[in-house]
Amino acid sequence: MAKVTSLRCVLCGRLFEPGEVEYTCTSCGMDGTLDILYDYQRAKKELTRDGLARNANFSMWRYSPLMPVTVDSRARHLRCGWSPLYRLPELASELGVRALFIKDDGRNPTGSMKDRASAVAVDRALGLGKRIVACSSTGNAASSLSGFAAVGGLQTYIFVPHTAPEAKVTQLLIYGSYVLLVRGDYAEAFDLSTRAIERHGWYNRNCAINPYLLEGKKTVAMEIAEQLQWNVPDYVFISVGDGCCVSSLYKGFSDLVEVGLIERIPRLVGVQAEGCQPIHRAIQERADRVTFGPAETLADSIDVGAPRNWAKALRAIRRSGGTTVAVTDEEILNAMRLLARKSGVFGEPAGVTGFAGLVKMATQGGGLSSSDRVAVVVTGNGLKDIVSARKAVGRPLVVEPNIESLAGKLPVY
Amino acid sequence: MAKVTSLRCVLCGRLFEPGEVEYTCTSCGMDGTLDILYDYQRAKKELTRDGLARNANFSMWRYSPLMPVTVDSRARHLRCGWSPLYRLPELASELGVRALFIKDDGRNPTGSMKDRASAVAVDRALGLGKRIVACSSTGNAASSLSGFAAVGGLQTYIFVPHTAPEAKVTQLLIYGSYVLLVRGDYAEAFDLSTRAIERHGWYNRNCAINPYLLEGKKTVAMEIAEQLQWNVPDYVFISVGDGCCVSSLYKGFSDLVEVGLIERIPRLVGVQAEGCQPIHRAIQERADRVTFGPAETLADSIDVGAPRNWAKALRAIRRSGGTTVAVTDEEILNAMRLLARKSGVFGEPAGVTGFAGLVKMATQGGGLSSSDRVAVVVTGNGLKDIVSARKAVGRPLVVEPNIESLAGKLPVY
Repeated sequence: MAKVTSLRCVLCGRLFEPGEVEYTCTSCGMDGTLDILYDYQRAKKELTRDGLARNANFSMWRYSPLMPVTVDSRARHLRCGWSPLYRLPELASELGVRALFIKDDGRNPTGSMKDRASAVAVDRALGLGKRIVACSSTGNAASSLSGFAAVGGLQTYIFVPHTAPEAKVTQLLIYGSYVLLVRGDYAEAFDLSTRAIERHGWYNRNCAINPYLLEGKKTVAMEIAEQLQWNVPDYVFISVGDGCCVSSLYKGFSDLVEVGLIERIPRLVGVQAEGCQPIHRAIQERADRVTFGPAETLADSIDVGAPRNWAKALRAIRRSGGTTVAVTDEEILNAMRLLARKSGVFGEPAGVTGFAGLVKMATQGGGLSSSDRVAVVVTGNGLKDIVSARKAVGRPLVVEPNIESLAGKLPVY
Repeated sequence: MAKVTSLRCVLCGRLFEPGEVEYTCTSCGMDGTLDILYDYQRAKKELTRDGLARNANFSMWRYSPLMPVTVDSRARHLRCGWSPLYRLPELASELGVRALFIKDDGRNPTGSMKDRASAVAVDRALGLGKRIVACSSTGNAASSLSGFAAVGGLQTYIFVPHTAPEAKVTQLLIYGSYVLLVRGDYAEAFDLSTRAIERHGWYNRNCAINPYLLEGKKTVAMEIAEQLQWNVPDYVFISVGDGCCVSSLYKGFSDLVEVGLIERIPRLVGVQAEGCQPIHRAIQERADRVTFGPAETLADSIDVGAPRNWAKALRAIRRSGGTTVAVTDEEILNAMRLLARKSGVFGEPAGVTGFAGLVKMATQGGGLSSSDRVAVVVTGNGLKDIVSARKAVGRPLVVEPNIESLAGKLPVY
């Protein structure tokens, strides 16, 4: 009955049986992240255009014939996925492309695309009989795990550097996670979590390490394809931090090609912040590996100097015929404002970084043509980081509480 | 073609033609809020169970035969409504009721139930040829108006007291609203906005004053009914501030009774904060009118001492056979934590106040029976007010970045 047929190392290609290994390649170590492979002949019969058109389950689970489902757990009851895809004709015209689509993944249960990964993680942990899930993160991965674990009845340990923003820590505590503030930086918190997970046998929801997480995230790509009636866009833009999101788009579109629902994979454009661009640099320099480097951007969710899913990310961008762009923090804040005003979608800094990359490529030239249809994934909700949003706006006008005080103060529209 | 047949004053019953008056009763003044009435015979043919079962528009607009639609405006493109309704069997059992359903309206575009009202307001303003919409609010009404107006291409003036939380003001500025910080309290900001709106002929999206807003919000009730296969619950709990939300539930269920989609209106339970309970007091004292009073609660969205939709609110609670409950701020914070951990739904303080009322009524006795099916509306997203959420949780544990530091620190699950 298992739909997963094997796990394959992205570096050496070694195949593993399902259950033989849970996280990374035993030969290549932590860099050898794994692809989950399915019985695509079987999935082809279960996942058809007609069947999907009749499927009333408007959540990510509509694609379950291509997901590593182990149990129909309570984690599935929290409505995740099938986020809106908005068509923006005016902005498309301003940017000089044929069509522009914004996928607002900040509409997920805890406000980010990470929810799709955590939903699968909790589902799988329950299927494996685990009672405790752990991860290291200061941001969306942790809050999404907290929320889904609460619904699934699992306990969670979250390791965060002691410098983590109090707002994000609060969200974890509300959901009932046991939060450990580590006196150290993110790398130290990550290492401590890895050792503790091994010692105690908890389920590991650290990004990149766990190959099943991508199998949740990839549903973003599947939804884009289905919401566009299987006529996929020419380009999809998305922000890149640890490399998981862009890799998940590649996996989602690839799986759809495997089962014949679409014919080609869109060009994937990974957008990084200039202050933190190891993937961008590797792509531009045609390097085989990614050199870890400094991380300095206000877009905290992609402030990742050591992108642990680098191998899959490079493959996704290269094999799709895509590219990368780096944008400044100022360009990110400008994009946040522009997107909110044009589309009503308020994204957090990392959430709108993909859009900032599109704006940059469209205005500075770089390959887009007027016949291109372009989609952009907004990966996180702006309410997650009001402090950064404040930097993107001016000050309100102060007036006295009488009608005369307004004279001459109102802009003429 | 107009589906709206008349507007009727909730106090004196006077009928107005559509277009004859836009806001409140010309005889009763501001207290005389209006009901929008439809050609229900016609709506009965357009809105059927079978038709809805086949309707693929999973947004509030699926009920448009009972909505004051004037144009198919761009405001409708922002996906609003059809928020999830979660069934929580374990919590139902703990609270001693037969079934418990949580309606998470924090999943709307800007994070609150107010989005439903703003969507209709922008739709209507566009239909009337207005270019500017204004309101006075520090919170969700303003941010939702900002978001929908941005999509609809309307300009917005928002009047807020200068004490407004910077986070909420930031959300307004991101969407491009022109924000006027009034040196005065909320009542002064409200009065100034009213005078400016009159003088300049802007469209007025002030709650209660504008009868069309309820016609958006009422879709929450319609969705609850449809999501439960038209088998409505015995009780629906919701927080009460200015009285609009509870009134909208009454209107939604009433309209469904009018067109024969359901047979009865659930008992509506309005929940207020103890520090701000004018509606609760009026219900408990069987008063004809509501006496405005002090407002002192951390649940800012219901921190309304002068509930301007009092007449409709009293009618909704009384005619439905419902009641009211008042809860302390501590009970609100406890409810926030409990709900997040049991359901994965993180609500802001006012958002979870309805749930706090249910917990109080269930644990202290007061009418609920073990055969009752109960729904609770969560009206706003917890990410809107992290400062309050912080008060609901403890502190995380600080550890050194080595595995030994964890010894004895981990709780045993």
